[in-house]
This record gives sequence, structure tokens and C-alpha cells, in this order.
Amino acid sequence: MSFPTDLEIAQQANIQPIKNIAEKINIKEDDLECYGRYKAKIPLAYIQPEKIKKSKLVLVSAINPTPAGEGKTTVSIGLSDGLNKIGEKSVVVLREPSLGPIFGIKGGAAGGGYAQVIPMVDINLHFTGDFAAIEKANNLLSALIDNNLQNPKNNLGIDPSTIVWKRVMDMNDRSLRQIVVGLGNGNGIVREEGFNITPASEVMAILCLSKDFEDLKQRLGNIFIGYTFDKKPIFARDLKAEGAMAILLKDAIKPNLVQTLEGNPAILHGGPFANIAQGTNSIIATQMGLSLSDYVVTEAGFGADLGAEKFLNIKSRYAGLNPDAYVIVATIRALRYHGGAKKLEYASPNIELVKKGIENLKKHIENAFKFGLKPIVALNHFATDAPEEIDFVQKECEKIGVKAILANEFTQGGEGMKDLAKAVVEIAKSGDCQFKPLYAAEDSVEQKIETIAKEIYGAEGVVYTAKAKKDLKIIDELGLNNLPVCMAKTQKSLSDDEKKIGRPTGFKVIVREFEFASGAGFIIPILGNIMRMPGLPSAPAAEGMDIDKYGNITGLS
Amino acid sequence: MSFPTDLEIAQQANIQPIKNIAEKINIKEDDLECYGRYKAKIPLAYIQPEKIKKSKLVLVSAINPTPAGEGKTTVSIGLSDGLNKIGEKSVVVLREPSLGPIFGIKGGAAGGGYAQVIPMVDINLHFTGDFAAIEKANNLLSALIDNNLQNPKNNLGIDPSTIVWKRVMDMNDRSLRQIVVGLGNGNGIVREEGFNITPASEVMAILCLSKDFEDLKQRLGNIFIGYTFDKKPIFARDLKAEGAMAILLKDAIKPNLVQTLEGNPAILHGGPFANIAQGTNSIIATQMGLSLSDYVVTEAGFGADLGAEKFLNIKSRYAGLNPDAYVIVATIRALRYHGGAKKLEYASPNIELVKKGIENLKKHIENAFKFGLKPIVALNHFATDAPEEIDFVQKECEKIGVKAILANEFTQGGEGMKDLAKAVVEIAKSGDCQFKPLYAAEDSVEQKIETIAKEIYGAEGVVYTAKAKKDLKIIDELGLNNLPVCMAKTQKSLSDDEKKIGRPTGFKVIVREFEFASGAGFIIPILGNIMRMPGLPSAPAAEGMDIDKYGNITGLS
Repeated sequence: MSFPTDLEIAQQANIQPIKNIAEKINIKEDDLECYGRYKAKIPLAYIQPEKIKKSKLVLVSAINPTPAGEGKTTVSIGLSDGLNKIGEKSVVVLREPSLGPIFGIKGGAAGGGYAQVIPMVDINLHFTGDFAAIEKANNLLSALIDNNLQNPKNNLGIDPSTIVWKRVMDMNDRSLRQIVVGLGNGNGIVREEGFNITPASEVMAILCLSKDFEDLKQRLGNIFIGYTFDKKPIFARDLKAEGAMAILLKDAIKPNLVQTLEGNPAILHGGPFANIAQGTNSIIATQMGLSLSDYVVTEAGFGADLGAEKFLNIKSRYAGLNPDAYVIVATIRALRYHGGAKKLEYASPNIELVKKGIENLKKHIENAFKFGLKPIVALNHFATDAPEEIDFVQKECEKIGVKAILANEFTQGGEGMKDLAKAVVEIAKSGDCQFKPLYAAEDSVEQKIETIAKEIYGAEGVVYTAKAKKDLKIIDELGLNNLPVCMAKTQKSLSDDEKKIGRPTGFKVIVREFEFASGAGFIIPILGNIMRMPGLPSAPAAEGMDIDKYGNITGLS
Repeated sequence: MSFPTDLEIAQQANIQPIKNIAEKINIKEDDLECYGRYKAKIPLAYIQPEKIKKSKLVLVSAINPTPAGEGKTTVSIGLSDGLNKIGEKSVVVLREPSLGPIFGIKGGAAGGGYAQVIPMVDINLHFTGDFAAIEKANNLLSALIDNNLQNPKNNLGIDPSTIVWKRVMDMNDRSLRQIVVGLGNGNGIVREEGFNITPASEVMAILCLSKDFEDLKQRLGNIFIGYTFDKKPIFARDLKAEGAMAILLKDAIKPNLVQTLEGNPAILHGGPFANIAQGTNSIIATQMGLSLSDYVVTEAGFGADLGAEKFLNIKSRYAGLNPDAYVIVATIRALRYHGGAKKLEYASPNIELVKKGIENLKKHIENAFKFGLKPIVALNHFATDAPEEIDFVQKECEKIGVKAILANEFTQGGEGMKDLAKAVVEIAKSGDCQFKPLYAAEDSVEQKIETIAKEIYGAEGVVYTAKAKKDLKIIDELGLNNLPVCMAKTQKSLSDDEKKIGRPTGFKVIVREFEFASGAGFIIPILGNIMRMPGLPSAPAAEGMDIDKYGNITGLS
């Protein structure tokens, strides 16, 4: 008998009405805003600052991702189930998946195996409409911009060639990447434009960094659009857009409650890109989880060099959300990959490759210490792991004072995560994690980038292109120097070159140019080509999807 | 003290939890799929064919619309409240409003005064996500088309210049009307494209004409896209798109339950355009209303020459939903307008203008008889109506055997609609309405158009452009002759010239070209320029909108 698919497991789950899940974390049924029977929004009034301080935050990140996948999300879900299994009250808090990629190659993004959040199909489709609302808010601003360009009254004099604000759509649609709008008689001003996928919208980043409606409106108003013909910067507030945009987000700002396969509460909220944005769920959702439970397990997108670094330097900084425990996910096969395994090779035991590849993991462990965090390694277990390989990794970690614990969430759910859960509780209660940011807000942009590049990536230095230097002046002119930086680089390597696996040394990173999200509140150094609108493959997953007359869905993986 | 705004009235309403409303129509709380506390979706299993046959359907349409507005929606809502007031069980079944226009000039579309459906703000914003789902399904097909154009494998050989399928966005955004996509290296095939507003999507028309998932999938698969280079027609099914599109609509297919200000049930579902599509809520919603109540009051978009004609010839034909009563809404000021009143003039009493303008109303009454329906005129009452004018209209109607009854829903709600409600019950029980379609499905397309033009519009004949004649051949080649026609013409006149007010005579209508919605299942003769993507005005309503820190919304009208 073969192992069932994620969809089969999800569909066979004994899903509980969401009000039962809410009851477990003391949300009154009358306060719950249900979306169907198995999803609900939680009113912001449930955020309790005093409780947040007492609860424990567990951050999950990973080594540099490999083609095989390391299972950060499954470990996060399984760990929260494991914590509940050993008698602790825990909520897993995650990003919402983007709809677009579902129809391409990628399967759903709600965990896998016996570590999933459900209802899986709903979560992967429109869920509670947050992405649609963000898309609308983003595109309302676009419509207001284009309307102003051709407006006889109240024309702000925006130079169309300077506009950096783009439209978004939550769809893998490469033909919208680069377009021309405003063609035809009476249809506005002709200009180049493009669509990004919705998670890449700055509105998404903003929603996930906002603490309340006031904060949200202020950030929305601070979105930079472009310049007037006489070089004055124009922001969304100049178009009086922030009120209407915030209205469109009135429900999207509330975190969503669902459940794990084991009936434990899960909060999913927001899903910003992990390269050009912070790559982690909303501040409000993390606060909500901590308000309603004793433990929150949360995930930072991509490897720790991007995900954890941004979580700590951006989100923790803005929200005072400091991890009490920090889990780095690794797999034996990924260590083989980082040891130089060729394709297919990393599926079979090879202790020599693991010995080389472990350097990637060690670097991420060292980086954790630099943030004042004592990590735990979660070795996400596969059938192809050799005991010798596991033993080696555990001993190497032990040498530097770090536990490496097998994670069996995929096949066993929370039951397979009790050891990890116990270790997490121990660390969280020990006070061994005392977060400190890596740089000061007052550091110059270059200093911040240098700190990250040298301390986290292990680079020898930073090189700026002429374009990047010019951009630095603009950032300075706009008074954005004190913002944290949000690095946009490949997730596949500690360096800015995706081919450099393991623990690369002797390299410099190149900042090609800068963008800035003045609304969200960060500067984005661009260290490589960043895909903001994926395409569909030659055989899109959409072709194999179906729904029968009873509403049963197949082909969604 | 001035009369409160719609938003003020809506916000001061004593809104009930939606489960209380559901209870009134015997929906079990556990079956209800709530969306927040005041909105819910109703499972399709509540459709009961036997009950549908016993319940009474009340169709509301109007004379040709004037700039002042006649209040079809308020009359529909008020009439349903009135029916409940006199002890009948009634549900009002309406379209969902489009989000885009909210940010332009137009206020909300959830009724007005004391005849509203609530929660007004939610209904006017994302509601339960139906429009967003329709938008996604539409745009998934677009992404699949553009992906196929540049696909090395499984390329269907579609000629890009023949593609008629467009993307949609629920936003007033004129700069997206005419665009070029696929620019840049690796971004697909360059071609002309455009966005329509979401209610103009054929997916919307399809959803509203589908009876179940099987029917939905079949219609989606039948969407015509364009031709291959060797002139073979290509449909959505050739791209295997219908399954994934239907999955995206899995919740959108379920009707939405809300309430009137008086706490009576209201079902809002779907919102197709009234010119290029059928302009009325979904078949499923109407069936659901009839299953759950003894009376359904429903509305057909624009004046009766478009709205009622399409309701009867398309929707009634496809669904067997025949009206038991038929209400034509008119106002005294609109009759003044149709009598030739200049701007401002129609706000003051003028019996001479009313005497001329009544011809428009009379024509719509005559048309009703042609469908086998005996109408009631609802005179939507305004403070500026002179008793003499009202008296004249009532007597003229009486002469042709039709009651004209004052409707006071705007200021008094259901209490002001009891007379109309009583008249509706009387007609519905009398069996005086015996619907018969105006043409046979087997009639040629030209015959169908001629029948509508002569019988309904009062035209002398129909003229076809060379383009239209060519299109007729294509329709014939594709085997679509037996579909009903869905006329696209100005709503402002009985003719195809919006300046011809009153009851024009001695004119011919010109069919400029044809489109066809082979998925939805109708042919669209184009009799004028049809706006499918509105723009924003120079001072967009969005600028005046705000939300405070408690989430209270202002500026939405």
C-alpha cells in the first residue's frame, strides 16, 4: 500500500467545526467570524499585550533550501501538534498560501503528510479572501494613479516614466509581466506597466507589518509611487488612496483560524514574498497566537540567511516579538546536496557528502548565536537516512552545544515530534535565547548590508553597481536611511550565487540596485534576478483538476 | 433634520445574526455556511423542486431608466418587506453589486433609504468572495491561453489575432481597456488584450445560468476562445480548463443569504451585466428563494425592454422560472423626463410632460401582455409628485386594465408597500400571468432579433451591417443558431438611440456586429457601443473614504 497523497489524508481527516477549535483557545462562539464551517476570522480585540509577554515564541527556519525540500512547514505544524501532545498549549502561526502557483507545478502549501492544516482545499484556494482584498487594494491604487495621469482636474503632474507601482494578480501569468496600458482613444495615458503576483505586493508586506488600522493607513499612505515632472516624490497619500485601500482590507487585517489534522488550532495570516519582502506571517497573527496560547510555533520563509534574518531584523524589531526558542530544519538528503551530491545522488546514503554538507548547517547555527539565540536542529526524517549519517550530524551539533533531534511529523504527526517538543520547551523555559538585533536602525544602509553580508552570509565584502550607488542617494534624499534592509537574493546559497552550495567562502556579494518599500518600512537591496510573476509550465496542473457533481475535488496536490 | 444617508440608515439598523434569519426559512444552523456574523452561503441541497413549483415568483422591472433613477432595487426590497408585513413569507432575490464602481461616482447597490439589504458595507465590498472567484476563473483561462500560445509541447496552434477571450478585474480602470501583453524576453507572445470589469465576464453569465456543477463545467468548457491558424474553433475544453475553473467556483455557486433592514431574508447571488449578458441573479438563487419561501421578489436589470425581455426569453426559458406576478416600476419624474423635460425640469410637477411621457410606460405594459403577463405598475413615490399627476397615471393604467399603486418603500420600508403587496398576492393567486416565450428557440437568429425589435422595441425593422452579416455566418458555422439572443443596446430608450425618449416610432435598429457566449448559451447582437470597463471620474469617491481605528467606515454611499 502506497503512502496516501496530501489531499487524500486531508479529505479523510476528522475535521471539527471551527467553533470547537475556537473553544479550545477560549474564543467565544459569538465573537468568531466564521467563513464556512471550518474557517474563521478572529476579532483583533483578542490580542492581549500582557499575555503576549508571558507566552513563548518558537521560530522555525532552515538550512539553505534544496530541490528536494526540507519541510519547514511540516516541521512547524508537527512541532505544534507535538507540543500539544506533551500537554503544552500551542498554536502554529503560518503564512497563507498563494493561489497562483496551485495551477502550475507546485502543490498546495498547507503542510504535507500527517502534518497539515485543514481544510486543505479551501486554504489553497480563496481561503477567507485576504489575498483578493490585498489585490484589490493594490489595484485600486493603480487605477487612481492612471486616472490621475489623464485627469484634467487635480492632476499631480506625475511623470509616467517614473512610476514604480505595479498592478498585481494572484495567478501564474507570465504574459502580464511586461505590458503596455492606456492604448486606444480615451483610455488614458500610454505607459509601460506590469503585473506582479499578489504576494509580491507591498500592500501584502504592509498588512503583515501593521499593528492596527491607524498603523495600516499610515503605511499605505507612505507607499512611494514615483516622481512628478518637476522631481517631487509622490506617495499614495497624495492621491488620498489610503482610506479606501484600508477599507478594502477591513477584514483581511483579521487573522484566520483553522486546525491541524490533529485538531489543534492553527492561525494563517498574510503571505508576503520571502525575497523582496519579509516572508513571514503578519505581526497581528503572531500576537494573536501568543495571546491565545502558551506557545506559538511560526515559520520564516526560505533558509535562515533570508527568513530568520528578516524575521529577526525586521519583524522582531518592529513588533518586539523575540523568539524564546529557535529551530533550524535540516534533512540528511539536503546535507548530501550541500556536500556536492549530483542529482539523484542525494537520495541515497553517503556519509562523505553529509560530512561536507554539514558546513551549511553549522553556519546557520553560528548565525543563530550572533542573534543571541541557542538553536535546536530538527532533522526531518526520511526513510533513506542512514543511522550513521544521523549519528554523525547529532554528534557534530553536540560538539557546538546544539541538540539535533529527529522529526517524524510527516509519517507520524505530533506523536513523532514529542522529543523535539520537549527540547523546545526546555530551551524556551531556560531563557537561553536572548534576542539582540544584528544592527542598529541608525547604521547607514551600507553598514547594515555589510553586517548582514559578512556576519550572516560569510561574505568578504559588498560591491555596489553604479545603479545601486545612485539608488543610495535617492534613499538618502527621501530620508529612508533608518529603515531596516530586506535583502533580495537567491535562497539556494548563503552567497548571492545559487551554485555556491555548502558554506561558501572568499566571495563578495553584489548589490545591483535598490528598491524601497517606504510603506512597509524597509529598503530592498537587489542581489539577483527576483521572479515576481511566475509562469505556468507546459503541462499546467490545472489541466488535471476536476470537481464532480457532488463538489468532490481531485487533482489538487 | 435632513433625511439620513443610506450608510447612516444601514449602520443604525438593528442587524440580526444571520443564523436567526436562516431559522426563519428553516435552514438548520449546522447547514449554514457563515461568512462573518451577518452573511452566509446556503448549501445547494436546500433546493427543492417540488416546493419551487408551488411558490410564487414576482418579477420587478421598470420603464426605460432616466438619469434620476427609478428605484427598481428599492421597490423589490420594499415589496418583499411589504409581503412579509401582510403575513406572506417572502424572500427578495437580487444580484450582488460590483465592487469597481463604488470607488468612482456610483454609490452602493444594496437598495436605499428604508429599503436596503444589509450589512451594506460588506455587500458593497468583497461580500462572500463570489466576484473574486469569478475573476480568478476567468483569468486562469486567460493564463492558460497565453501559456499555450508559447508552449513548445501541446501547442494548439491558436492564432493570437483571433482570441476574443479577455481578462477581467472588478475595478473601474480605463487604462486596462486596451493593452498589449507578452512584452519582454521570455514573457510569452506579444498580442493585443484588454480587461473588462468582472460582471462583464462570461464566467459570471455562466455561473448565473448553471443549475449544478455538471452544468457549470459543461458551460465553462463551451466557452469560445478563438481560432487556430488553420481556422478550427477553440473552446475552453480544448485547454482542459473547465475542471480547474469550476473548482475555483466551488463556493461561488452557492447563493448568499443576508437580510433586509426589517430582518426579512434576502438572497444575493451573481451580478451579470444587463447589456451583454442576462442582467439578473443566478438561476440557483431564484430556485433557492422559491424553495425556502412562498414568494420570491426578483429584479431584472435596466428597463423592461432589456431586463424583463432577457429574464423571460433567456432565464425563464432555461430554468422554467415563470413569473406569477410582474411589477413595472415607474416614477412621475421619469415620466416627465420621457415627456421631454429638460434637465432640472423633471424635478417639478408638470402634468403636460407626464401626459406625453406615459407613452413609455404604456409600451412596457403592452409588452408584458405579449409575454402573457398582466403587470402591476409600482409608482415609486417622491415628495415632488403632484396628486394630479399620480391620479392621471393611475387612471390611464386603469383604462388598460392595469393597477398603478404608490410605492413608499424609500421613506417607510415595508409599511409603505402593503397596498402593492396585496395587489401582487391577488395577481399571483389569480393565475392571470401565464408566461409564454416571445420566440421559439428554433427561429433563426434574424427572426428572433426581428421579433424582439418589432414586438418589444416598436421598431419597423432591423438593419445589419456587413460585419454583422459576416458574424451571422460564423454563428451558423459554429452551430449556435438555436441559442436565445441577448440584446446589447442602450437602456435609455426603447430604440437603439439613447436620445429617443418616450415611445419612439418609425425607427429601425442597427445590428452592428455579433458576439456570442457559447458557454453561457446566448448570441449577443450588438446595437451600440457597450462600455465593459468603466473609468474613474476626476474626483473619485475613493478619495473621500476612511476607516477609523475602531474599524468604522465613512464616505461609502
